[in-house]
Amino acid sequence: MRVHILSVGNELLIGDTVNTNASRMGRWLTQAGLTCARVVTVGDEYDALTDALDAAFRQADAVLLTGGLGPTHDDITKSVLCGYFGVELVRHEPTLVAVRRMFERRGLAFPPSNFAQADLPANAEVLPNPLGTAPGLWFEHQGKPLAVMPGVPREMAHLMEHEVMPRLVARAGGRAYRDRYYQVVGIGESTLSDWVIGPVDDLLQPGLTMAFLPHTEGITLRISSVADTPARAEAALQPLATRISTKAAAYIFASDAHTRLETAVVALLTEAGRTLATAESCTGGWISNLVTNVPGSSAVFLGGVAAYANAAKTDLLDVPADLIAAHGAVSKEVAIAMAAGAARRFGADYALSTTGIAGPGGGSADKPVGLVWIGFHGPLGTFAVEARFFKERLVNKEKAALTALDILRRQVLGIPGMPYDLQPEYP
Amino acid sequence: MRVHILSVGNELLIGDTVNTNASRMGRWLTQAGLTCARVVTVGDEYDALTDALDAAFRQADAVLLTGGLGPTHDDITKSVLCGYFGVELVRHEPTLVAVRRMFERRGLAFPPSNFAQADLPANAEVLPNPLGTAPGLWFEHQGKPLAVMPGVPREMAHLMEHEVMPRLVARAGGRAYRDRYYQVVGIGESTLSDWVIGPVDDLLQPGLTMAFLPHTEGITLRISSVADTPARAEAALQPLATRISTKAAAYIFASDAHTRLETAVVALLTEAGRTLATAESCTGGWISNLVTNVPGSSAVFLGGVAAYANAAKTDLLDVPADLIAAHGAVSKEVAIAMAAGAARRFGADYALSTTGIAGPGGGSADKPVGLVWIGFHGPLGTFAVEARFFKERLVNKEKAALTALDILRRQVLGIPGMPYDLQPEYP
Repeated sequence: MRVHILSVGNELLIGDTVNTNASRMGRWLTQAGLTCARVVTVGDEYDALTDALDAAFRQADAVLLTGGLGPTHDDITKSVLCGYFGVELVRHEPTLVAVRRMFERRGLAFPPSNFAQADLPANAEVLPNPLGTAPGLWFEHQGKPLAVMPGVPREMAHLMEHEVMPRLVARAGGRAYRDRYYQVVGIGESTLSDWVIGPVDDLLQPGLTMAFLPHTEGITLRISSVADTPARAEAALQPLATRISTKAAAYIFASDAHTRLETAVVALLTEAGRTLATAESCTGGWISNLVTNVPGSSAVFLGGVAAYANAAKTDLLDVPADLIAAHGAVSKEVAIAMAAGAARRFGADYALSTTGIAGPGGGSADKPVGLVWIGFHGPLGTFAVEARFFKERLVNKEKAALTALDILRRQVLGIPGMPYDLQPEYP
Repeated sequence: MRVHILSVGNELLIGDTVNTNASRMGRWLTQAGLTCARVVTVGDEYDALTDALDAAFRQADAVLLTGGLGPTHDDITKSVLCGYFGVELVRHEPTLVAVRRMFERRGLAFPPSNFAQADLPANAEVLPNPLGTAPGLWFEHQGKPLAVMPGVPREMAHLMEHEVMPRLVARAGGRAYRDRYYQVVGIGESTLSDWVIGPVDDLLQPGLTMAFLPHTEGITLRISSVADTPARAEAALQPLATRISTKAAAYIFASDAHTRLETAVVALLTEAGRTLATAESCTGGWISNLVTNVPGSSAVFLGGVAAYANAAKTDLLDVPADLIAAHGAVSKEVAIAMAAGAARRFGADYALSTTGIAGPGGGSADKPVGLVWIGFHGPLGTFAVEARFFKERLVNKEKAALTALDILRRQVLGIPGMPYDLQPEYP
């Protein structure tokens, strides 16, 4: 099934917004064994959108459209659809009720332009969108489906996952696709590829692919297989999956496409019945924020201190002022004292601490921007590691937070060795 | 001049690469007063690219194409161009010399596939590319220009800046473009549009546009104008700019395209010589993390407590245990006590606190998921507001953090009223 994507919005053409929606949709289609054959971006312009819609119906087997469904005057997608299909807008009461309820639950007055959100082309099947005021729309035209979704990425993603992809896949039939994903942390892409996993040429065969997808939080490793039947696609994957999961075991924290490191760590702590506290200087709350993003984290996360000022390190974490004076706030000794202080103050089994130079200012020859001491306290002892990230401020913060969480993950699991082969230093 | 962009490459369709090139080119065109009317992405496929090229020549005044110029077998752009124009590839000696020299300077052997980089369509004008092995190409067809560039972002950027844009602008006879951006927070899109700014039909005129771009952190409002001269474009913007900046003054925290709320708040505190501390329960560090993302925030941010467990609220923020027992952790009283406690413990002028039900679990009829009490302490007093966000966990956290920062922004500036018309409640 060849699918065309239409992305609608002046903000995409003038460069205010990068078209990440099309990439995500393309990936979904590809992973389902469908072909994303073309992406066309047009502005909020009647003739251009009509023309693009017409071309897509002529050339593709199915069309996905995002954007231009909002309540303001620059949103014209619904009016173009009405013109193209020769239908009128009709008030869809269930949508109006849902949108009204959204405002009521927040105790907000209902602005009149939102009535328009419930006026939908008469020939549309309505796809409920619990995340926003514009529902998705499904049309059948010339025997081909057209799915219309809001351009807001999380609303598009919800509708793609729950409404659009299941319908497309059911319709396409076709070849079988299978994949495995591995989430990897604490190692660089080339080290993972060249030395940890090593050559895999002996296992690759037609229809079987392996891809390294590096991102700021680590590396996603995908292997995928296309074959005539699900059983054959699955069988083709097995040897490579076994090789990877054996060789890279220490670095893999999840065997799926989406699990985040903090989610894996909270699950490990929950299973172990252990608690965590944090003491963050240079990361400023990045770790506690990540951990508390995980539903149910309140069962294991007791709390943290973002100790930016030295007085906060002393008053709230019991780091002796003379320790800071002797070694500097960015030091092994202070990192260890912060972790131990957080564990004691919050009564936690484990504690993580960070103290470093996030940048762009504050660096010196001795302690350059990107230097971070990460402290750890756990049932078996206390140590710190010296990490050097040498990136921009936000990347230094994020890398420090993720490295700290990976140290915790390895300690809870009893994995020997540190991420990036960092060396633990003891008090 | 209406320009179409053709982006070529399977990696764009399957979602491995996000099409940032098209965004950057769109911005260049827009800023030069040209119109980026369409972006079409196709794979490395002969018929699809030929068809897209033909459609672009029919519909646009000029065409920009990137991608598919590499030396490997999946790069077919040059062969499509030869087929489309009915010409042959011809060896271009200056290009061969330049590519050879690149390898020599790096002390590398010259792989034979690079000879193909100097074989160019006979009707092309060659645009030198000092950053890579594939030169840019310039064609004239049916009185319209076609510029072809490599897909490597920095090579595309070099050619756009030095070769393509100057030619296009000279040809278009230059219209002038001007814009203004406003960053807005603490209000919904429809409320802003319908009630705060109100109808602007009296000010709109040909060439003048207004766009609302909602995103998770707020709304970006853009007005832009195209006219014969810079002075006319500027003059056309003025009345609308004045209307917006007057009517929406309380909600605008920056008058540019990219400033974030936390950056604006840190700048305000720095200017006022005031300090901040945080006490976060349901936001878990989101506020402190945002604030410490800002370079120089250490001058105003003293620190924060992520007080997830009740014991942490009592031990580190001096919230009386019987206050929590009497009102519950999610209450006006506890929010106020947390803010006051953080200000006292850290010795800060201002303090923000949050306590709420982030979800997905933990809600009740009385205190549903999405309910957040936001506490404020400042030189002029202490209060809390009850906000009801009713979203998913991460959105609830983010909205609570941003609303807290907006309350602080308003208090520092002396703006009466709260974001979303929330009502302050005093002890």
